[in-house]
Amino acid sequence: MCQPWTVTQPPVCVLGLGLIGGSLLRAAHTAGREAFGYNRSPAGARAAGAEGFDASTDLSAVLTRAAGSNALIVLAVPMPALPALLARVAEHAPDNPLTDVVSVKVAVRDAVADAGLLPGYVGGHPMTGTAHSGWDAGDAGLFRGTPWVVTVDEHVNATVWHQVMTLALDCGAFVVPARSDEHDAAAAAISHLPHLVAETLAQIAAEVPLAFALAAGSFRDGTRVAATAPGLVRAMCEANAGELTVLLDRAIELLGRARAGLATSGSVAELVEPGHAARVSYDNFSRPDILTVRVGAPDWRSELAAAGRAGGVIRSALPAPDSRR
Amino acid sequence: MCQPWTVTQPPVCVLGLGLIGGSLLRAAHTAGREAFGYNRSPAGARAAGAEGFDASTDLSAVLTRAAGSNALIVLAVPMPALPALLARVAEHAPDNPLTDVVSVKVAVRDAVADAGLLPGYVGGHPMTGTAHSGWDAGDAGLFRGTPWVVTVDEHVNATVWHQVMTLALDCGAFVVPARSDEHDAAAAAISHLPHLVAETLAQIAAEVPLAFALAAGSFRDGTRVAATAPGLVRAMCEANAGELTVLLDRAIELLGRARAGLATSGSVAELVEPGHAARVSYDNFSRPDILTVRVGAPDWRSELAAAGRAGGVIRSALPAPDSRR
Repeated sequence: MCQPWTVTQPPVCVLGLGLIGGSLLRAAHTAGREAFGYNRSPAGARAAGAEGFDASTDLSAVLTRAAGSNALIVLAVPMPALPALLARVAEHAPDNPLTDVVSVKVAVRDAVADAGLLPGYVGGHPMTGTAHSGWDAGDAGLFRGTPWVVTVDEHVNATVWHQVMTLALDCGAFVVPARSDEHDAAAAAISHLPHLVAETLAQIAAEVPLAFALAAGSFRDGTRVAATAPGLVRAMCEANAGELTVLLDRAIELLGRARAGLATSGSVAELVEPGHAARVSYDNFSRPDILTVRVGAPDWRSELAAAGRAGGVIRSALPAPDSRR
Repeated sequence: MCQPWTVTQPPVCVLGLGLIGGSLLRAAHTAGREAFGYNRSPAGARAAGAEGFDASTDLSAVLTRAAGSNALIVLAVPMPALPALLARVAEHAPDNPLTDVVSVKVAVRDAVADAGLLPGYVGGHPMTGTAHSGWDAGDAGLFRGTPWVVTVDEHVNATVWHQVMTLALDCGAFVVPARSDEHDAAAAAISHLPHLVAETLAQIAAEVPLAFALAAGSFRDGTRVAATAPGLVRAMCEANAGELTVLLDRAIELLGRARAGLATSGSVAELVEPGHAARVSYDNFSRPDILTVRVGAPDWRSELAAAGRAGGVIRSALPAPDSRR
């Protein structure tokens, strides 16, 4: 990279080497980045070490090393484990740039603020995964061609934002800039509600004789995510309760209206016509490149939020904050 | 086939050469069966004829030919077109064996009974399809390895049942025996409700800024069937209103409880745990072969219904009614 905005990228310190964190350690390493990690379970750390990755179970040592090299720290543990981990980060590496890969953003930001770490924090959410978990399920290619949300809340620092964007691009993802609250509402619509609906469909089919015997494509597709470990589904849904409650109400309202239409006029047109139109507009949804916003310029956060809302994505690095030196 | 229960199979007369009927004409032909068809639109009939198939737009002539050869008549038109077609069948070929490929079974059986054709009728439902329609979308391999429901209601005649079973097997499907009412309840659970839920998810996502921008696998899978033509979704849901209303109520109840759990205790465990268990039991659902029931023997209908309910399928022809001559 010999472009004018090239800046030296910091080492990457991944805390938690499960499916996402483990894939991130591999992907950063593959991209030529200095990357090291911490894992609570010795088995995961050993497995990573045996494959030549730099992994340890000594959190204090890992954080001290991160502080010494001003590494970009990535929080890659489930939401319930976050407060305890943040306390350790605050103790050993309070001034490091900090991001995360958790699937909700407001709750994480609140926890980061509670730990006094907000100034160096930019939220992240790679929108990818598999039905499996743990280090062994990881894959350096997991992020390739998938959206990675990087938050543009009012507090975010341009230098850290550029580092997080670069990490996502290094891993092969494209970046969707978004405000934390808008991310959470959208995630409720396209992930958390679909998960609860899949659980509902699976449970109802189990109650109807012959249903499993006849189940084919539409049922398999519609309930695929119900195979996800219940603990993961609960963690993401429950951490986004506010947004999810609003959408559950809306789903109940739409299904109730369809039920009433069926019972009174024998028609489900009121649900089916707009539902089909919505799916068609999703199929036609375009993702233009965001090319012109300079990170750190006046109004850069709100410009990026607007561009992301319109479908815009970052596929190659935007100019860095110091690119007009 | 030199087995003791080999019986000569009648010609197949397909009324309606859309996706399913057109695929059926091709598949029966490929299996070596004499097969001919009727299509209302000249374009479809011409296209079939140009590919070497025996297709006509003259319904009276086709039905007269069917009557003369005692062909197995297959109703392959949408539900709304059925009563008028049945009146013509009653006029020209009232004593022929008769089946159908429509996605609901009680409503078709009622329409057949209204036309005075119940004695020769056995319901059928190939559980397959694509997002496309019309003759050109058809494919002789469409039924391969997919379930084909053949109804075992109290009225069904053993000889006709065996003919319909053989047609399904000739097309490469496996047969699931089921009562019409149980079929409709199961179809509501594994097809009609999933369609309405997909429409709901698509519509809600369209209402939330940023949702399409973040949508990935779980949303794509969960809304895939919302891309189906609205007319087809309406036709199948509205023809099964009774069963579907019951399951809509159940879905609303389960989602409402999840909403209450989230609002009061911050937990969605009550929905997620049984939903996950149901999906796992579906993944482990086995399909044993039905081998021992002799069509036409005492209690054969209820034995087949019980076997189908337990997951049993017919992969090779059961003994014919006259196999113990």
